[in-house]
Amino acid sequence: MPARTTESERRMLRVFAGQTLTPPPIWLMRQAGRYLPEYREVRARVRDFLELCYTPELAAEVTLQPVRRFDFDAAIVFADILIVPDALNQTVRFVEGEGPRLDAIRSAAELARLNPSATRPKFQRVFETVARVRQDLPHTTALIGFCGAPWTVATYMVEGQGSVDQAGARLWAYRDPQGLQRLISLLEDVSVEYLSGQIDAGADVLQIFDSWAGNLPDDQFRHWVIEPTRRLVGRLKARYPTVPVIGFPRGAGPLARAYAAETGVDGLSCDWAMPLKFMAQELPKHTVVQGNLDPLLLLAGGPAFESRVAELVAQFAQRAFIFNLGHGIQPQTPPENVARLVGLVRGAD
Amino acid sequence: MPARTTESERRMLRVFAGQTLTPPPIWLMRQAGRYLPEYREVRARVRDFLELCYTPELAAEVTLQPVRRFDFDAAIVFADILIVPDALNQTVRFVEGEGPRLDAIRSAAELARLNPSATRPKFQRVFETVARVRQDLPHTTALIGFCGAPWTVATYMVEGQGSVDQAGARLWAYRDPQGLQRLISLLEDVSVEYLSGQIDAGADVLQIFDSWAGNLPDDQFRHWVIEPTRRLVGRLKARYPTVPVIGFPRGAGPLARAYAAETGVDGLSCDWAMPLKFMAQELPKHTVVQGNLDPLLLLAGGPAFESRVAELVAQFAQRAFIFNLGHGIQPQTPPENVARLVGLVRGAD
Repeated sequence: MPARTTESERRMLRVFAGQTLTPPPIWLMRQAGRYLPEYREVRARVRDFLELCYTPELAAEVTLQPVRRFDFDAAIVFADILIVPDALNQTVRFVEGEGPRLDAIRSAAELARLNPSATRPKFQRVFETVARVRQDLPHTTALIGFCGAPWTVATYMVEGQGSVDQAGARLWAYRDPQGLQRLISLLEDVSVEYLSGQIDAGADVLQIFDSWAGNLPDDQFRHWVIEPTRRLVGRLKARYPTVPVIGFPRGAGPLARAYAAETGVDGLSCDWAMPLKFMAQELPKHTVVQGNLDPLLLLAGGPAFESRVAELVAQFAQRAFIFNLGHGIQPQTPPENVARLVGLVRGAD
Repeated sequence: MPARTTESERRMLRVFAGQTLTPPPIWLMRQAGRYLPEYREVRARVRDFLELCYTPELAAEVTLQPVRRFDFDAAIVFADILIVPDALNQTVRFVEGEGPRLDAIRSAAELARLNPSATRPKFQRVFETVARVRQDLPHTTALIGFCGAPWTVATYMVEGQGSVDQAGARLWAYRDPQGLQRLISLLEDVSVEYLSGQIDAGADVLQIFDSWAGNLPDDQFRHWVIEPTRRLVGRLKARYPTVPVIGFPRGAGPLARAYAAETGVDGLSCDWAMPLKFMAQELPKHTVVQGNLDPLLLLAGGPAFESRVAELVAQFAQRAFIFNLGHGIQPQTPPENVARLVGLVRGAD
């Protein structure tokens, strides 16, 4: 595990040591994915999405593809936030064109269906992917391990699928907070092990995806987003004090301030609706800011795209900053727009 | 039209004259709706939702029902934000259990399908509803007229339905901002007439619903949310300087500050994810704050509900404030929870 020193050969890590880099490091959420023909070729070799996640040779290959093509400053292990419920023995299926389907857990009594001692074999495949990627990755490229935040993973487990309003989990939180806390605590425990294993296998940065953080009143946000993340980060830091952790509380709005100040994360990944001024001026000074180009703007390309990229880079020229999208790359994105983005950020044009 | 003086017999209007009222006025978004058995009875008499909107006798009846039952401080005319595209001759259908369907407009060329001179007959029915409601409403109850904000209405017109990410309109904005501006300008013009007619018929407060304001980068938010709203409010204020206007830029997050400061609205309706501290401390002092109980918490009831209502009322005890939900009431909400809410806010329990 490389030390987080200013001398690290990995530019991504130097940012977490407090350095402002010009140009900033860049990687993109969902950079390994359907917009790349070489990804679609590998994807066609397996039956379903989860099989790709659980086949280390192929998962490593698709993890490396965007780094080869675009020379990103970081790779992110190809996996999914629903590997955790799947490894816990909740049935997870990915229905083509529809998204994930899980056998919903609707009450504390149904938590008995989960088996925290069963996770190892499936997690092990992800760890093997991490190890393979690390072996083939350029020394200068960081490797990001990740998991879903307890709240967001719980919303899928409770709802049985993605949803606009996460009503199942939110109602449970109101009606039986102690019951839901049992699920959240279980996810905290399992996530510590899952992320620790990724670090042990070679990940040198972590990201915690809280995609559904943004739909909660402030008291609920504190209880179900900030607190579980703070505990999770604290337990990781106790074991791996030098591994930077990035949090992505999508849609947190003004509460991103409290999230950055209180969870212990080193970096904050900002969604595309987060105002640049807020990111630059209202987050804690020590927080590394990551973000936040609208993925649709990358898809669209053109003058609006070029000028917004320039605005973003200029806005954070004086701050420890990582260039990224505000959410995952869209499958219809032309790869040449991604190449153009990297060129613009690196000032090669 | 009543003057906005501190002596108004309508408590809702006194708040806009700068008074802090104890208890605060209360009404609920979508207070006329499926959670009420008397609404479902009326709804069953017509073929579809739009027919209900366009039948003044019935629309007035359902507008009045929640005021009779709960003695709210305001009624809001029963209508829909998609009446504007429907009146413009874009085909709008409400599919039961699926939401609205429109024949999508995908380019500036297709704007020719819209007919701004055709709106009067359909708008007239809404104006008649307003007039009927005003006649039967207690003198102490305010009457709210409303429309969708140009951006939000445009997202439906472009997408052809509700959508998670409003990708159609957002892509159009990036690729052909001048073309989309033609649609937005047309909606501004039509909305001025639509809201003016509602005021002339007896509405004494307006609310502009921008349900999809919250998914835009800051520059797009300024261009498509703040600017059209500022123009719309300015034109209304030129005609009706004393009629208060409430804006509801759902999901605006930190940008709610700029929205409140720059659009000219008198009140800001806050979604349930807006932190109370932000609402209390970071909005312009003269802005009337409205909100923002989570509708799911009203549905759930119980101790979490009761304590949050108390927290909200206490938080805004020193400020011009209107109690409301953070979004529309859920159809499964028990009416007795609504009665309990009104009791709690009015300190009757």
